Amino acid sequence: MKVVVTGGTGFLGQRLVRALCERGTLTDSAGRERSIERIVAVDQGECIEPFADSRVTYALGDISDAAFVGAAVADDTDSLFHLAAVVSGAAERDFDLGMRVNLDGTRLLLEACRRGKPVPKVVFASSVAVFGQPLPAVVTDATTPTPQTSYGTQKLASELLVNDFSRKGFVDGRSVRLPTIVVRPGKPNAAASSFASGIIREPLAGEESICPVEPSTGVWMSSPGTAVAAFIHAHEVPKELWATVRSLNLPGITATVAEMIDALRAAAGDAVAGRVRFQIDEPIAAIVRSWPARFDTARATWMGFPQDADFASILRDYMKHYAPALLRK
Amino acid sequence: MKVVVTGGTGFLGQRLVRALCERGTLTDSAGRERSIERIVAVDQGECIEPFADSRVTYALGDISDAAFVGAAVADDTDSLFHLAAVVSGAAERDFDLGMRVNLDGTRLLLEACRRGKPVPKVVFASSVAVFGQPLPAVVTDATTPTPQTSYGTQKLASELLVNDFSRKGFVDGRSVRLPTIVVRPGKPNAAASSFASGIIREPLAGEESICPVEPSTGVWMSSPGTAVAAFIHAHEVPKELWATVRSLNLPGITATVAEMIDALRAAAGDAVAGRVRFQIDEPIAAIVRSWPARFDTARATWMGFPQDADFASILRDYMKHYAPALLRK
Repeated sequence: MKVVVTGGTGFLGQRLVRALCERGTLTDSAGRERSIERIVAVDQGECIEPFADSRVTYALGDISDAAFVGAAVADDTDSLFHLAAVVSGAAERDFDLGMRVNLDGTRLLLEACRRGKPVPKVVFASSVAVFGQPLPAVVTDATTPTPQTSYGTQKLASELLVNDFSRKGFVDGRSVRLPTIVVRPGKPNAAASSFASGIIREPLAGEESICPVEPSTGVWMSSPGTAVAAFIHAHEVPKELWATVRSLNLPGITATVAEMIDALRAAAGDAVAGRVRFQIDEPIAAIVRSWPARFDTARATWMGFPQDADFASILRDYMKHYAPALLRK
Repeated sequence: MKVVVTGGTGFLGQRLVRALCERGTLTDSAGRERSIERIVAVDQGECIEPFADSRVTYALGDISDAAFVGAAVADDTDSLFHLAAVVSGAAERDFDLGMRVNLDGTRLLLEACRRGKPVPKVVFASSVAVFGQPLPAVVTDATTPTPQTSYGTQKLASELLVNDFSRKGFVDGRSVRLPTIVVRPGKPNAAASSFASGIIREPLAGEESICPVEPSTGVWMSSPGTAVAAFIHAHEVPKELWATVRSLNLPGITATVAEMIDALRAAAGDAVAGRVRFQIDEPIAAIVRSWPARFDTARATWMGFPQDADFASILRDYMKHYAPALLRK
């Protein structure tokens, strides 16, 4: 089978591609377990560290370009994992770019999948940014999304398309709303949530990190590994369990910025934790405040989605890979 | 001020244009009451009965054509009432047509409004078709829309755009979710709800009417007059009352098909009521069953939106205009 991963050379996309290579099989929309013969990583550039697997090829281009999308998906795609997006802060600054990539791009991918036989499975990486104030203290599966960012609006509108394309039998779609992914390695990005990784990553690398939100700010989080496992689980769950509601809030954990820094102090010491400095950036803080921090994800738990234990375990997992010398125990 | 009404030569659009002519003024987005100097009726064809008002002009074309929309709205539109749509049954049969007109058309109109100074007000005619099963017995302002039709999907995605364009300050938008409008004069249309007018209109005109849904089917309804008053009220309500949630379930009344025919019998006699024949059309019945029949519209009531008294009064109002000789008292 042929699998397409958009955003395939991004941080999560690369991890997903590697996980698919290791796994070797997926269940197609007809319910048959099939071996993965090709994985096409759709993105704007290649990975710095190349994929060491002959099944993986690149398709480099812009997902808002219909001809490019049509050629990358073609009529032989069995499964599409759609992770590519203009991130929240960037979509807020450049409305037209966000609409073009996040909404039009998703629609072009869905349209391209309409030609596939059997019907392609589609896993869409949505976001808890579909929620915005006013919100209850705890968001449940019944809470109405009322996005207060362009990114959240574009993600929610895309979910609606995934749902209707599925209802019409054009694709077998599943949208999962990701928590903030922590800890991302590498450089800060233009996501409003970038700080949540930065306040851990930079201090561990010996650098100062400027936190643009209040210490009391709650963050709903998932580790990268759990998110990748959730993409694959979303793909494998039988479509009967999705029924008519093809969108789902993924499990996560909640911690405040202060609690995250406390965990960093416990794991790596005062000197490291002391490298976080607060300087409130109101536009960023406003976006982050509009997101919910606490969820009851009963449906996802019932459907068997994986969940992190706590922030300390997420932190230790990151440190083992990226800063083992600093681990205190 | 210049007012644009899309679907302006349709049944509701014509009534809205005439109501605006009578009213003569509207409040612009800066809060000033201004006199209406021009009304542009955007539609695909002229009215059979022409508008007898020199302020009204036509702009005839396709709202999924960017050049046409740009020219009709231009940079001098103060208020847009967007009623044009491919109706539910047609959007279900022709998915691409529905997407093009109902979603792309709305987006083009919103884009065209971005050029306006002061910021144009936009009233968008959405629909209770944004709701679909699973649903509670009574839909409230907190119920999450989960459309199970392409029409409902396109309306909801358009609401999201109206909301985000408003949040960004590009327009001052307000989306109102219309109940089924009963009784529409004229011919049946391709809406799945067309029967709700047909079972009244055709028998009163001496013709048989075939009802495609069960007698027990509940319908959430509004009269045309109340709907037109709601459009104008939605335009006039200060934007502070809309706050961050620019979509609203309009008030209506609930009656089953059997109750509607009983009211017809009471008002016009057995011979008239006997002209309704049941012949279930499963695709239509499935669409209608997926719609909610009972609502608690507390927010709309709090915002002062008008409401019909009961089905008997809607029926008598229609008969007074279209079948006065048949009225029993």
